[in-house]
Amino acid sequence: MLDFEKAGGLVSAIAQDAATGEVLMIAWMNQEAFEETVRTKRAVYYSRSRKKLWRKGEESGNVQEVKDIFVDCDNDAILLKVNQIGGAACHEGYKSCFFRRIEADGSLKAYGQRVFPAEVYGKK
Amino acid sequence: MLDFEKAGGLVSAIAQDAATGEVLMIAWMNQEAFEETVRTKRAVYYSRSRKKLWRKGEESGNVQEVKDIFVDCDNDAILLKVNQIGGAACHEGYKSCFFRRIEADGSLKAYGQRVFPAEVYGKK
Repeated sequence: MLDFEKAGGLVSAIAQDAATGEVLMIAWMNQEAFEETVRTKRAVYYSRSRKKLWRKGEESGNVQEVKDIFVDCDNDAILLKVNQIGGAACHEGYKSCFFRRIEADGSLKAYGQRVFPAEVYGKK
Repeated sequence: MLDFEKAGGLVSAIAQDAATGEVLMIAWMNQEAFEETVRTKRAVYYSRSRKKLWRKGEESGNVQEVKDIFVDCDNDAILLKVNQIGGAACHEGYKSCFFRRIEADGSLKAYGQRVFPAEVYGKK
């Protein structure tokens, strides 16, 4: 179903809040992560830096309950509609990892409020 | 600002409908594509298969007007809030490239209606 070969065994996975439509994060999945996600209905990614499965929320408790999965037209990316337990997907404590906007002058400005202080959310 | 080195000169770019929140597509940008996107406020991607800039809508007219750009926490992905001219981002004629859902039996089912027949939308 998915084309894992195109990007060295990985597909892109976007997590979107199932209720609000907010895009929370993007990460990668290998076939094992994808199959575990489908089976357990909890988001499991593959960490390129740690080279192993990354069960989102395993340490923090802030798991992502997967409500629906959509596949893109060329089979190398998926979209997860999730219920983000704990209210924050980002390891910096914001709801979304995309919390900084590029302003008109080219600078980055953080939007939204931290749900958790970064230090208690833990490292991803 | 962006870390283009992590993925061989590219960052991931998610396009989301600025009005509805629907995730339309995901593609890649190199630094040149990113800078042209910021400057022109129209989405410009980098085609890995064709190895060149891909000015979205250049042939079809269905450009993406970029309203806002957000950067993720580790600087290797961006989120574009866009106004999709023509109503469809997908080269298969659907509004979103993520038009197929994984059903309970593991099959893929298309949702939504084609805005354009695939053949008139042109190839990406």
